Amino acid sequence: MSSARLAGTVRIVGAGLLGTSIGLALRKQGLDVVVDDLSPANQRLAVDYGAGRAPSTDDEVSLVVVCVPPDVTAKTVALELNANPHAVVTDVASVKSQILSQLAESSCDLSRYVGSHPMAGRERGGAISGRADLFFTRPWVIASNAASSIEAVELVEKLALDLGASPIRVDAQSHDRAVALVSHLPQLVSTLLAARLEHADARDVSLAGQGLRDTTRIAASDAALWLQILSANSERVLPLLEMFESDLATLIEALKDLAKPGALSVIGDLLKRGNSGVEQIPGKHGSQPKQYSRVVVMIDDRPGQLAKLLTEVGEIGVNLEDLKLEHSPGAQVGLPELYVLPEAEVRLVEALAQRGWRIVG
Amino acid sequence: MSSARLAGTVRIVGAGLLGTSIGLALRKQGLDVVVDDLSPANQRLAVDYGAGRAPSTDDEVSLVVVCVPPDVTAKTVALELNANPHAVVTDVASVKSQILSQLAESSCDLSRYVGSHPMAGRERGGAISGRADLFFTRPWVIASNAASSIEAVELVEKLALDLGASPIRVDAQSHDRAVALVSHLPQLVSTLLAARLEHADARDVSLAGQGLRDTTRIAASDAALWLQILSANSERVLPLLEMFESDLATLIEALKDLAKPGALSVIGDLLKRGNSGVEQIPGKHGSQPKQYSRVVVMIDDRPGQLAKLLTEVGEIGVNLEDLKLEHSPGAQVGLPELYVLPEAEVRLVEALAQRGWRIVG
Repeated sequence: MSSARLAGTVRIVGAGLLGTSIGLALRKQGLDVVVDDLSPANQRLAVDYGAGRAPSTDDEVSLVVVCVPPDVTAKTVALELNANPHAVVTDVASVKSQILSQLAESSCDLSRYVGSHPMAGRERGGAISGRADLFFTRPWVIASNAASSIEAVELVEKLALDLGASPIRVDAQSHDRAVALVSHLPQLVSTLLAARLEHADARDVSLAGQGLRDTTRIAASDAALWLQILSANSERVLPLLEMFESDLATLIEALKDLAKPGALSVIGDLLKRGNSGVEQIPGKHGSQPKQYSRVVVMIDDRPGQLAKLLTEVGEIGVNLEDLKLEHSPGAQVGLPELYVLPEAEVRLVEALAQRGWRIVG
Repeated sequence: MSSARLAGTVRIVGAGLLGTSIGLALRKQGLDVVVDDLSPANQRLAVDYGAGRAPSTDDEVSLVVVCVPPDVTAKTVALELNANPHAVVTDVASVKSQILSQLAESSCDLSRYVGSHPMAGRERGGAISGRADLFFTRPWVIASNAASSIEAVELVEKLALDLGASPIRVDAQSHDRAVALVSHLPQLVSTLLAARLEHADARDVSLAGQGLRDTTRIAASDAALWLQILSANSERVLPLLEMFESDLATLIEALKDLAKPGALSVIGDLLKRGNSGVEQIPGKHGSQPKQYSRVVVMIDDRPGQLAKLLTEVGEIGVNLEDLKLEHSPGAQVGLPELYVLPEAEVRLVEALAQRGWRIVG
């Protein structure tokens, strides 16, 4: 029995990271999913993975999800609207206005089209990176057009909910302006920064801490895909890059002559503007993160130790809000970080210490 | 009984994040630690935290660790060298050459001075953010000068080892060149990016995914401290910023006229250079990260569930290489990610499924 909001057959076109992940998640909900890909090898892989079945000639499709590269998305949406005259069609491309204007030039029935953009992804692409939980708790933009029917919008919203995502209704223009700032600008800045490492001395790079890793992580993303995304949204990214360039030029001028009156305050102001900017970002799931107290316990790096610790935490009666464990190759110990409500911290630390656990932070 | 390599009394000057963390870690090793700070309130806080005891007039100090802001580090090192004629003195400032040239102008005994730079920190500063495990497995740069005695270098190396850090010997010039690339440039780029969010529409920012959070995390760092760091290393950061600026200008030109022949290849090349750059960064602990298989299990968000899961993983006989659990407020489930050796994955998934656990990825 299915607990899904959607019903009938869902057809996924394009078995890359997103298409495969959507298929995996919908199959887990017990839905009938058809997965189609121009590449027979990709399609077979997605089917083997459990993302759906191969299409057949008599499929009665209620919803089509187009998950192909941005530059062929509009064309594919038009094809699917015409081939499935009773189905609602959505896509998952990162830029929405260009697709909409391309579709407006076609003679398609746009009442059955609603654009989507799941704010989720990975640096690694392809069906083999697919994950059923990829969209879990992530924003899912629903960008309807002037012609979209209410039923079509609601159906795509059900898709988002069935995937565990949080649907957000935004028009295509506002969406594209937002992603230029929160996705495309960071991508380019990360790329420009990582490019400086290309021919760097390996010994210099070996001193890298977490800051360099975090700031350059997304620079590992698929270059071909990003070329398409940036092409489709260049007019919205450009002014942001130019404002960035202007701040950079001001910074360089100040650093060139630190003795000049005002130079230090220019740099200080910029650093503080960066502080303020970070504060604008809401917590991971859309609200300010709750502050938990952190208790670090040193355990032996052998099987069962962590389970024993957590069992005892349960016995002590403290609820774990979060848990982090970072593997340190070569270390003979593990340092699990337990996050608990602040009022429970002292009690937990005392009880664990009494039981012989070594608290290190 | 102490298991420490160091012996005698260690004196820490400056009870901020680093001074307090060093004190906490050395105290846990059973060493006698004196913690001194110009601010009586800071000092009392660090002592209360367990980072050491207050100084007394007859302390016989073997090692002084100067943990004051960069702009007063050289002066403080000189004072400590003169006040403790038998002690080795080190500091933890992020830039090493400027301090060395300032000290060279003094008449201090530089045979007893060896600079340090622990490649560890946090966005939050102050004694209250101190952590005994702050340096665990992190690189600890040991920058001796031409006059440093072998004994002094070895003593500072013992300090790093007692803190669980990995000592790396690098001269001051090479160190400052390296951190300009792996620390100071990323800091400024992250700041410039975050500054773009300062007056952004809250609705736009609400679409932010992990990419924006990672690229701007370090922009939350202490502005006053960074102003000093950048001032001390401006001549090495400047050329890197200028190369970044040159790439940025090229990118902007290409985005302005995408129809121009070659424009797309300019952007594509840059994206690929970013890919190559990321590949230059070694794994978190100095080597390529080992690839583990990832098993995601859906559990109820109530006490004891995770402990039960891990106990059963132990019963199945699979060793956990790593574990991640991300708290999702509002969600009724948790999604712990278990990382195991690839050869153990199928066995673990089958055994967990048999025991009724829900595997979602």
